[in-house]
Amino acid sequence: MKLISQIQQKKSLLCVGLDTDIQKIPKHLLDFSDPVFEFNKRIIDATAPYAVACKINLAFYECMGIKGWESLEKIIEYIPKDIFTIADAKRGDIGNTSKMYARTFFETYAFDSITVAPYMGEDSVKPFLEYEDKMVFLLALTSNKGAEDFQWFSDGDSTLYQKVIEKSQQWAKESKGGLGYVVGATRPDDISGIRKQAPDSFFLVPGVGAQGGDLHAICKNGTNAQGGLLINASRSIIYASSGEDFAEKAAKEAAFLQKETALYCEG
Amino acid sequence: MKLISQIQQKKSLLCVGLDTDIQKIPKHLLDFSDPVFEFNKRIIDATAPYAVACKINLAFYECMGIKGWESLEKIIEYIPKDIFTIADAKRGDIGNTSKMYARTFFETYAFDSITVAPYMGEDSVKPFLEYEDKMVFLLALTSNKGAEDFQWFSDGDSTLYQKVIEKSQQWAKESKGGLGYVVGATRPDDISGIRKQAPDSFFLVPGVGAQGGDLHAICKNGTNAQGGLLINASRSIIYASSGEDFAEKAAKEAAFLQKETALYCEG
Repeated sequence: MKLISQIQQKKSLLCVGLDTDIQKIPKHLLDFSDPVFEFNKRIIDATAPYAVACKINLAFYECMGIKGWESLEKIIEYIPKDIFTIADAKRGDIGNTSKMYARTFFETYAFDSITVAPYMGEDSVKPFLEYEDKMVFLLALTSNKGAEDFQWFSDGDSTLYQKVIEKSQQWAKESKGGLGYVVGATRPDDISGIRKQAPDSFFLVPGVGAQGGDLHAICKNGTNAQGGLLINASRSIIYASSGEDFAEKAAKEAAFLQKETALYCEG
Repeated sequence: MKLISQIQQKKSLLCVGLDTDIQKIPKHLLDFSDPVFEFNKRIIDATAPYAVACKINLAFYECMGIKGWESLEKIIEYIPKDIFTIADAKRGDIGNTSKMYARTFFETYAFDSITVAPYMGEDSVKPFLEYEDKMVFLLALTSNKGAEDFQWFSDGDSTLYQKVIEKSQQWAKESKGGLGYVVGATRPDDISGIRKQAPDSFFLVPGVGAQGGDLHAICKNGTNAQGGLLINASRSIIYASSGEDFAEKAAKEAAFLQKETALYCEG
């Protein structure tokens, strides 16, 4: 599997989050016909030696309308083929609609994986799991404050997020694709329990940079023999500088995170 | 409010779901440069006298890439301004990302409302509620089989879907926009309880046609003084015929549902 070999080769668990907001990119790029693409191109070039994955937050592209989708197409095309791609789309709907979303992100755009919301249950998730060599990251325990509202809702035996993991582990057994989870970095203590529930799954961990999660606690508690973690950093890398040196500073930040995670790449 | 005056004027609770799949539209439309737009245009014309709202399922447009978004832009533009529009997008993410999604559907595309997934809690929903004259339909109890997986998860006092309604009713009090719920038509008995929890909210009810919900039980149990229900039918209207008479047959089906719901439009 591409992701595992990337982790072993680069000794990195780093995923770069391309949450590109045109209002935040360096001013000198605004002269290009597609500033969003130019910005991402330079970030991809600068961070590719250190990153094993790239996560594209769809919201930032959708909100620009067709222009945003045009930039997105070019960006996906530009990402080196050995880097694992994640459509951070958080989709999920009744079966025939989820099938369309799966087609969108796995066929129309050839992402390697997608984030999916679990609220609507099995038939809303399964269409995404029908693709060989593709992966689903199901929302389990997220990094935001609102995670407390429902994800910790409990029947006395287990919380909702534990129930999501428990049930979905069964779905994965009957499916072709891989199943991973979104697990917020703001909760390093809880990740040990999640690892016990899903020993072989990849966890996509947002919130290490801007949201303040503890990298080493997460890695200690969350890795498995294959690495099993993707540590996502978005704003701390892509907006490391707002000047002409933004790509250089992004590379420096990415190199730092690669080095910090290298220790945990051998299981 | 536009939606309420439409309901009173047309004596209808009908919402037409534009889940247009290019593989299912009548063959004679494929000669047009944008068959998806041509199909929707005719469906909109045919059903507008009977429908108070139009729900656009984003998945069906996204999966066509940029061409799909081009069709979508034309469709939104074409829908008569007095018809209430729903972006059936089921988005939801951390605060700054939900803000981008809200901008997409309320500003880039001027939808009147959007469907939102609750799993990530308050900060994932609130950005959508910050728009005056816009509405959020939060997923509560959906019409698919997978609804049983998590929505009925219970702490002994209430189920997850009841918790979602209870908490979100509080959020709505502090917000500018309106808050409604997606409530599946396959569960007419449960809708009475949901109406008690949210007496003033609109419910968007999918699943009356293809998914087999009982229209009259839903209307009896779910309406309030303002109507308070949108009965969505998608496939049963738009694919009422696959021949050249598709628009005529769609109108007939829409007229039928308008008449069936007329009884419940006066509270």
